[in-house]
Amino acid sequence: MSYTREPVQAMSKPAVVLLSGGLDSATTLAQAAAWSYDLYALTIAYGQRHRVELEAAGAVAAQLKAKEHLILEVDLGRIGGSSLTSRKPIPKRRRSEEIGQEIPSTYVPARNTIFLSLALGWAEVLGAEDIFFGANIIDYSGYPDCRPEYVSAFEKLANLATAAGVGGKAHYKIHAPLISLNKSQIIKLGMSLGVDYSLTHSCYDPWADGSPCGDCDACILRRKGFAEAGICDPKIS
Amino acid sequence: MSYTREPVQAMSKPAVVLLSGGLDSATTLAQAAAWSYDLYALTIAYGQRHRVELEAAGAVAAQLKAKEHLILEVDLGRIGGSSLTSRKPIPKRRRSEEIGQEIPSTYVPARNTIFLSLALGWAEVLGAEDIFFGANIIDYSGYPDCRPEYVSAFEKLANLATAAGVGGKAHYKIHAPLISLNKSQIIKLGMSLGVDYSLTHSCYDPWADGSPCGDCDACILRRKGFAEAGICDPKIS
Repeated sequence: MSYTREPVQAMSKPAVVLLSGGLDSATTLAQAAAWSYDLYALTIAYGQRHRVELEAAGAVAAQLKAKEHLILEVDLGRIGGSSLTSRKPIPKRRRSEEIGQEIPSTYVPARNTIFLSLALGWAEVLGAEDIFFGANIIDYSGYPDCRPEYVSAFEKLANLATAAGVGGKAHYKIHAPLISLNKSQIIKLGMSLGVDYSLTHSCYDPWADGSPCGDCDACILRRKGFAEAGICDPKIS
Repeated sequence: MSYTREPVQAMSKPAVVLLSGGLDSATTLAQAAAWSYDLYALTIAYGQRHRVELEAAGAVAAQLKAKEHLILEVDLGRIGGSSLTSRKPIPKRRRSEEIGQEIPSTYVPARNTIFLSLALGWAEVLGAEDIFFGANIIDYSGYPDCRPEYVSAFEKLANLATAAGVGGKAHYKIHAPLISLNKSQIIKLGMSLGVDYSLTHSCYDPWADGSPCGDCDACILRRKGFAEAGICDPKIS
């Protein structure tokens, strides 16, 4: 597992980057680009309430010159268990200190495991050894599948699960470069890497026209991050 | 991880069972039933060449009285890398001793990791702690994601990945009850548990009417298993 900010010496090696279209994954994609990886962006249409973030992912992938942007469909709404894939209410207007104290209804069971598994499959086909995702444990919602011990366990699994890993042709690394950054640090990093945050989408529960609700945890953490960074959010300004 | 044949003391606990519609997964489902689990059968339509095995899975789930049979779609053909999801040729007419020596083109990158991840998500929603799959390392094709060390690594991950696992509400167990059995032992076990093998489908490359080709690795291993068990395969007899 690698979640430092030190540059990896990569000479146009391919990397699969999970890209939701949100602020964290856009920054992660830019970080992989800055580390000279060829970008293969993977977005999962998992039955989330809205398609706005899929469009955002496409715009971010294009801006950061991904070699390929693959959108895979798997309807996790059929499994249920989350307010993000159902009509259950999404928590609103919580104080930022409350967020992350308990796992909220926006938790999607096994989501990152499902997403990383799909990324691993694509990585093996591409001959990529590096998988990036935007997990973060500072300004986050308290999801268990964002923590360093989880990332390490997935990396171990990846090398046992695949023909390339077992055969010694690849040693998979799961990169979570944002894991120990707070939201304002992520934003500052992304700005320095040229991310256009006006293209990103964070809100869990946007209005019909795609504009953010302003009240969900994702909106609150985003607003706090931009405020602390002393930068206007280009998405809403 | 549990892959012994000893009965688990289960009093109608729910279990998620991965069910492809093949011989091994049907036997695994019957084993979970015999151990008194309530069966939640999960089949993944992953873009395999044919839909015959999905119909087989439905028939097996019904015969073994699964409480629910969920078919989830995720098109792994978009990722590629396998003859099972593309037009690449499928190995034919190999000697049974050859099978399992090398990983063949029928390997689907990260398939079991993707399938177990989806099973884990459903298990968490159902409040199930037990996940069964029909991995086997004796008469098998040599896939890395069937080995005991892989199964153990996934079990460890499952307990780090989920709100229920981390919160102590669940301790996930990945059961691979067939892992050390050869094909004839699996068939004898299944017969003793009342599996109707005429409903199952093993062939990688069936004819247009759904009948097995007889020449692919899956057909060869199945034929050898029935021959060694001294039982006629009800599918083809």
